Amino acid sequence: MTEYTFYDPRYPELLIENFNRQNTMRFIGAQLTDLRPGYAEVTLPWREELTQQSNAIHGGILATIGDNAGGYAAWTLEPNDANMLAVEFKINLLGEARGNPIIARGNVVKQGRTLTVARIDIYSIENTNEKLCAIMQQTLMCIRPT
Amino acid sequence: MTEYTFYDPRYPELLIENFNRQNTMRFIGAQLTDLRPGYAEVTLPWREELTQQSNAIHGGILATIGDNAGGYAAWTLEPNDANMLAVEFKINLLGEARGNPIIARGNVVKQGRTLTVARIDIYSIENTNEKLCAIMQQTLMCIRPT
Amino acid sequence: MTEYTFYDPRYPELLIENFNRQNTMRFIGAQLTDLRPGYAEVTLPWREELTQQSNAIHGGILATIGDNAGGYAAWTLEPNDANMLAVEFKINLLGEARGNPIIARGNVVKQGRTLTVARIDIYSIENTNEKLCAIMQQTLMCIRPT
Amino acid sequence: MTEYTFYDPRYPELLIENFNRQNTMRFIGAQLTDLRPGYAEVTLPWREELTQQSNAIHGGILATIGDNAGGYAAWTLEPNDANMLAVEFKINLLGEARGNPIIARGNVVKQGRTLTVARIDIYSIENTNEKLCAIMQQTLMCIRPT
Repeated sequence: MTEYTFYDPRYPELLIENFNRQNTMRFIGAQLTDLRPGYAEVTLPWREELTQQSNAIHGGILATIGDNAGGYAAWTLEPNDANMLAVEFKINLLGEARGNPIIARGNVVKQGRTLTVARIDIYSIENTNEKLCAIMQQTLMCIRPT
Repeated sequence: MTEYTFYDPRYPELLIENFNRQNTMRFIGAQLTDLRPGYAEVTLPWREELTQQSNAIHGGILATIGDNAGGYAAWTLEPNDANMLAVEFKINLLGEARGNPIIARGNVVKQGRTLTVARIDIYSIENTNEKLCAIMQQTLMCIRPT
Repeated sequence: MTEYTFYDPRYPELLIENFNRQNTMRFIGAQLTDLRPGYAEVTLPWREELTQQSNAIHGGILATIGDNAGGYAAWTLEPNDANMLAVEFKINLLGEARGNPIIARGNVVKQGRTLTVARIDIYSIENTNEKLCAIMQQTLMCIRPT
Repeated sequence: MTEYTFYDPRYPELLIENFNRQNTMRFIGAQLTDLRPGYAEVTLPWREELTQQSNAIHGGILATIGDNAGGYAAWTLEPNDANMLAVEFKINLLGEARGNPIIARGNVVKQGRTLTVARIDIYSIENTNEKLCAIMQQTLMCIRPT
């Protein structure tokens, strides 16, 4: 694996503040619970409001935290005042997410000059078992300050 | 285009009830605003709680309503007591969604015995202009009652 | 729909030459058969060498011509000496491609400063029927000469 | 990781024969070079005929061998007389593939009753360096004999 280092020595603190400025993350109750160079973990405590008919967390909500896990993994390698945009992502839903919490873990696969590619694994924590419930592949564009 | 017909003459009413049983849709404030054979429209009024740092609707929330637009488009062709699962989807984010409302329009491209494929367009309504802000491609699996 | 125009008045001729410089297209026998602003059509005559076990055209070959249909659709809006790179694509295989020829039709959905997004439909021509056998969604990056 | 075992004790031999019945693999010169439970490796020796304008292997050809790496990884867990269909896949092209050979390595992420999901990494072997040039995520459907 490529060895990455934080772009800014004030990471992870600065990026946690950055993450917490997103209204959506507060609204659904997700938190940035681990951040290392090229890696981010987003944790979502179970919440009945985020379920679909079969009482599992909605696939779109899994995608929402997965999108952020990939985005902040990429952001660890870029300046805090950059603008990190998700260009596209694809998610496979592997099984129902009924655990508490749900954890999304994003890893940078390739950091390019313009585009960064990440893979994300999303787990449903059921008792002490981590059940893989979704996987994602994502493209991000970093717009750096000039 | 293939000509589709509703699977159940009690559609769209039955599917609107079905949609409204999803906690996530109530939580974010999305509604099923149009339903025709092979087609569904989901409308999300602007809501500050659903934005990211740059004050546009979070890409994951766009994916959430897009996922439902594709899913209910597919469901119009299937029994109400079937279980409609999103297997996977891919979304391209084309531009920031700052309009009010946001509208996702899903169309069935191919209904198969096991799998159905849909395409979804997501629009940000800015004044009277419909700006295309995301496009999706989705695979669904219909588990029919035996 | 957005109204596009050719970037270069010498299109389509210049882009057809450009297309024909790709060894892969010659090797599999594909041709650029229609080119309009924001649109490209690639035609692949049936060829036994391009099939899989069930005697249909291999899904990867469908992706190959679809990738080019999207790429040249995007290139109609860019300089001939640009470098048009496919960043990623996703394909849904809807049914077996046993027709002759196979036709991929790509349309630009959004041309951005850096990235362009296209959708592609792939048809298997069976007698006079055009059977939709695959759909794609693709992201391209245009590196323009400075 | 899940521990998998070959479905049939005559694997890998039977699956290698199966692979070699695909005309496309012979046409492009790809071989199934490693097969373990839940894992397959496809190797493509460099071939000028498979390049695009910039003299790297065409992205569609990378997708073709990646599609097969995922498909045979899934097939190791299923009967030889099953029909293994790729439902869809997504590929990110990370860098130019100019090495010799190109190697695609597929791993099953989740085997389900109907659908199997795989991830594939594609490497360009440049001198002794393995450069990751593409990553894929794929959905397969296994139609088992009744």
